[in-house]
Amino acid sequence: MIPNLQPDVALAERLFDELRAATHDGVGITREAYGPGERKAHAIVKAAADDAGLETRHDPLGNLLMTLPGADRAAKRVLLGSHLDSVKSGGNFDGAAGVLAGLAAVAGMQRAGFVPGRDVTVVALRAEEAGAWFPTSYPGSRGALGLLRKEELEIRRMDSGLTLAEHMREEGFDPSFAEAGGTTFSAADTAAFLELHIEQGPVLDAEQIPVGIVTGIPGSRRLRSARSLGEYNHSGGTPRKYRRDAAIALAELAHRLDERWALLEAEGHVLVCTFCVLATTEEAGFTKIAGEARFQLDVRSVNPRSVDALMETLYEIVPEIEARRGVRFELGAETSSRAAPMDSGVQAGLKRAAEALGIKYKAMASGGGHDAAAFVQAGIPAGMLFVRNQNGSHNPHEAMRMEDFSQACAVVQRWAAEISQ
Amino acid sequence: MIPNLQPDVALAERLFDELRAATHDGVGITREAYGPGERKAHAIVKAAADDAGLETRHDPLGNLLMTLPGADRAAKRVLLGSHLDSVKSGGNFDGAAGVLAGLAAVAGMQRAGFVPGRDVTVVALRAEEAGAWFPTSYPGSRGALGLLRKEELEIRRMDSGLTLAEHMREEGFDPSFAEAGGTTFSAADTAAFLELHIEQGPVLDAEQIPVGIVTGIPGSRRLRSARSLGEYNHSGGTPRKYRRDAAIALAELAHRLDERWALLEAEGHVLVCTFCVLATTEEAGFTKIAGEARFQLDVRSVNPRSVDALMETLYEIVPEIEARRGVRFELGAETSSRAAPMDSGVQAGLKRAAEALGIKYKAMASGGGHDAAAFVQAGIPAGMLFVRNQNGSHNPHEAMRMEDFSQACAVVQRWAAEISQ
Repeated sequence: MIPNLQPDVALAERLFDELRAATHDGVGITREAYGPGERKAHAIVKAAADDAGLETRHDPLGNLLMTLPGADRAAKRVLLGSHLDSVKSGGNFDGAAGVLAGLAAVAGMQRAGFVPGRDVTVVALRAEEAGAWFPTSYPGSRGALGLLRKEELEIRRMDSGLTLAEHMREEGFDPSFAEAGGTTFSAADTAAFLELHIEQGPVLDAEQIPVGIVTGIPGSRRLRSARSLGEYNHSGGTPRKYRRDAAIALAELAHRLDERWALLEAEGHVLVCTFCVLATTEEAGFTKIAGEARFQLDVRSVNPRSVDALMETLYEIVPEIEARRGVRFELGAETSSRAAPMDSGVQAGLKRAAEALGIKYKAMASGGGHDAAAFVQAGIPAGMLFVRNQNGSHNPHEAMRMEDFSQACAVVQRWAAEISQ
Repeated sequence: MIPNLQPDVALAERLFDELRAATHDGVGITREAYGPGERKAHAIVKAAADDAGLETRHDPLGNLLMTLPGADRAAKRVLLGSHLDSVKSGGNFDGAAGVLAGLAAVAGMQRAGFVPGRDVTVVALRAEEAGAWFPTSYPGSRGALGLLRKEELEIRRMDSGLTLAEHMREEGFDPSFAEAGGTTFSAADTAAFLELHIEQGPVLDAEQIPVGIVTGIPGSRRLRSARSLGEYNHSGGTPRKYRRDAAIALAELAHRLDERWALLEAEGHVLVCTFCVLATTEEAGFTKIAGEARFQLDVRSVNPRSVDALMETLYEIVPEIEARRGVRFELGAETSSRAAPMDSGVQAGLKRAAEALGIKYKAMASGGGHDAAAFVQAGIPAGMLFVRNQNGSHNPHEAMRMEDFSQACAVVQRWAAEISQ
């Protein structure tokens, strides 16, 4: 029997305000990974957890653990949380919502005198937005899970020029923990990880549903610095058959891949395909045929076969366009990431919780990557709960409504109460 | 009976060298319209014409007339020539080749003691590349033909900020001549105008033919500052149906117009269609769907129906893409220019001359615009002769071979000798 609990949403609201006040840069929110903004956010959140009577500690990499002790302290813990860092001039909710939802859930349990069967730990993971600061992914959670490679500690932050290890040490932490293969969390000591996050797309808002239960985090195949190369020529004096038009070759490639995407979708594939950049260069101008155009391509799906189906078309079309249009595509390095399916047990538990609370939800794939993917990689059952949000994320206009957040906190709390019994 | 004449190609070669030495800017050739570069070029060419014993004078707008007197000085004159100005860091041949070919032709006539039946005048027109310096077209030739509108004298040069009239006065000329509707040339006093020019495209070079006899100068319809407007969104989190992708909407428009062009060409239309610029803006970047892209479109043909057929497709496709993709196209102002067919009598005369001399030629449309279009507009029979050239024009790498120029000069001279009888 799950008791009737209420999350302490007022606590979360107060912390959202404190975080905003401490880390607003005049334009948006800036909480640099392993930098002053993230440090301030951790201090605010740790103080609140201490006040609430939770056990708090930082692991050697700076991840903050805030634990409500359970009846059986040796049992595998339940983990709730997300990250506190942000992109430069981002929004206040991306990341922080997941940490504060966890705090609201456990503070509400404690206030009600509810003692879970096992420890429930809220975690504020470090540096989820590392990609905006360091050229790597999720060093905080991957470090805690023993997945951070030694050489990744030596990559340098784009602006400061210091290495990740140096930034960790500057913040008072110990990168040798990761080097030595230490773990804060493992499948042996963690029952499940649940990450609440604002939705980064418009789906829940468009469909008027407050929460999403995530089915998986997509994998990707990406071209970050691809080019179409032709020849600059006079736009009036060069007949069709003598052209090597880099712009129109790229337009054809993009349009045909987009048509292939539509076809795959009609066949039941779920994926996205985006030409994030598609551009002639500064040399282009009036009365010239473009000799060069550059592009960035981002293809994602929870199902790797869907990504591969689209990329196969790319590799088929490219030589055909090259031969017909006299251009050359330089695709550059392809980078990829593996898809991370969410645990079916966690998904089922979240559905039960939402249904018991009468909260409407939608099962949906994530669009972006999240720390939860690292937990999947470490073999820990993981789930994600999306909260309806307007204006996307990574910008100052993120607009999660508190009533939606409140409903999502209730789902998190009920799920945690059930699983921790 | 046309006498056996030889053009004085050595004179032209010497003048090409002098022009290059006087107006090379370190990168390419710079002869600013109504500026120091054009002034130097006119001085060099005038001195050579004086030395050759031609009658020389500048008209009130600075166009230079160099005349070999004919037997009947009251008869309509034959006019040969082109312009001496250049774009910034352009090539030595664009324009100058037409003036020097005219000089080579008449100097050869004079050397041979040939007295034409009527005056043969070589003209160095001012400011054909005005578009690179002032926002107008052909003020030199149009001024000489009484076609320059009063308000065009008041437009300002992009860099100096002075008006066209002020620049004319600074060079010692009298813009009031144009204001008062004066004419240097008219259908009443000019039998025909022939302009030799380097080909600005690769056709003659590819087809191994030294000269082209131009059938017409294309008209155009152009979009110089068009935009596709959508919405920036997360590339991972935004499913296809919620996207308003400005980049892919533009790619579709460009690709479909290009396909329409191919179809029109297969039906016998001769035209060119170029997306000179096709580009997401600086705001675009990885993991974002592009909310904006800009483009420039240049459609040209000697046959206005071909241009219109393509533009009709544009105006059909645009609302269809807007509705389907949730974007908006801002096409901006459309500018246009009228096609100028070359005189059939002049074309026939050039063919006779080339055939008599055993010189291979190709009948072809011009790609770019030229002063000859202004003569057509003034009702003067006009023709153009292209010379094979590599690497296009308006750049330092223009590469006309002197043996091709020599053959073209022979065609000019023979045509002028015939028509002036």
